Amino acid sequence: MKIDKNWLVGFVDGEGCFYIGIKKSLDLRVEHHQVLPEFRIIQHKRDVKLLYAIKTFFGHGMVVSDKSKDSLVYEYRVRKFDTLYDVIVPFFESNKLLTSKRFNFLAFRDVILMMKQQEHITEDGLSKIIAIKNRMDQFC
Amino acid sequence: MKIDKNWLVGFVDGEGCFYIGIKKSLDLRVEHHQVLPEFRIIQHKRDVKLLYAIKTFFGHGMVVSDKSKDSLVYEYRVRKFDTLYDVIVPFFESNKLLTSKRFNFLAFRDVILMMKQQEHITEDGLSKIIAIKNRMDQFC
Repeated sequence: MKIDKNWLVGFVDGEGCFYIGIKKSLDLRVEHHQVLPEFRIIQHKRDVKLLYAIKTFFGHGMVVSDKSKDSLVYEYRVRKFDTLYDVIVPFFESNKLLTSKRFNFLAFRDVILMMKQQEHITEDGLSKIIAIKNRMDQFC
Repeated sequence: MKIDKNWLVGFVDGEGCFYIGIKKSLDLRVEHHQVLPEFRIIQHKRDVKLLYAIKTFFGHGMVVSDKSKDSLVYEYRVRKFDTLYDVIVPFFESNKLLTSKRFNFLAFRDVILMMKQQEHITEDGLSKIIAIKNRMDQFC
C-alpha cells in the first residue's frame, strides 16, 4: 500500500493526534514531572495494514495495540524525541494541516523546540509547557 | 483555501460518511419506502471554512448546521442524486480510499447504480438495497 503525502496530511487532519503528556515522576529534578510528547493515529484493527504503511512512510514509530489479546484498536505511535524533532515536526511544517488541528500541531511543535533546548527541565520551562498543554485542544 | 484531491481522499478516509437512508413514506408505490443516499463530512464549527472549500472543490452540495442557533456542528452534504452519480461516485472511483471505508463506498456505489436503473422502485430491487445497507458498516 503506497501512501501519498497529501493523503496522509488529510488523514491526519481527520484522525491524527498531537499529544503532550505530563507525568509525575520521582526520578526527575524539577517538580518531579516528565514531559511526554506523542504523535499517534488510532484505527480499528481492520485497518492495521494502513498503520504499518504509515510507519513505512515515515520510516519510524511503532504500531501497537492495547494489551488485551483480541484488541480491536490499534495505534501508530511516535514517542521517540529525535523522531518527533527530525521527522514528524518537519513533515507537518512542510505539509500544512488544513483543519484547526494545525494550531494543535503548532503548539506541539513549540513544546518540541523547547525540549530540544532542554527548557523542560527548568521550573520556568515546565510551567510554560504546562500552560501550552492547557491551551491545546488535544483533539484526541 | 485550496483543496488537494489526495488530501481530500485522506480526509474522507478519516471523516467522510457514505450513508444509505431508508425512509417509510405513504407516497411511494413499493412498500412505501424511499431510498435516500447521502455523502457527508461532519466538522466542528471552527472548521466550517474547510467544508465550504470542499463544496467549492466538488462544485456541488451544501454546508448546513442543525437547526439550533448556536450549533457547533456543521456538515458538508450531498443528497442530490445526479451529483452523487455524476460527481461523488466517479471521484472516489478515480481516487481510491485507503481505509476499509472503501468497502462502504463500493456498497454505496452499488446502490447508486441500482437507483440509476430505477431498481429501487421495484420490490426486488428495494430488498437488495436493504440487504446492502445492512451489510454496510456505516462508519458514521
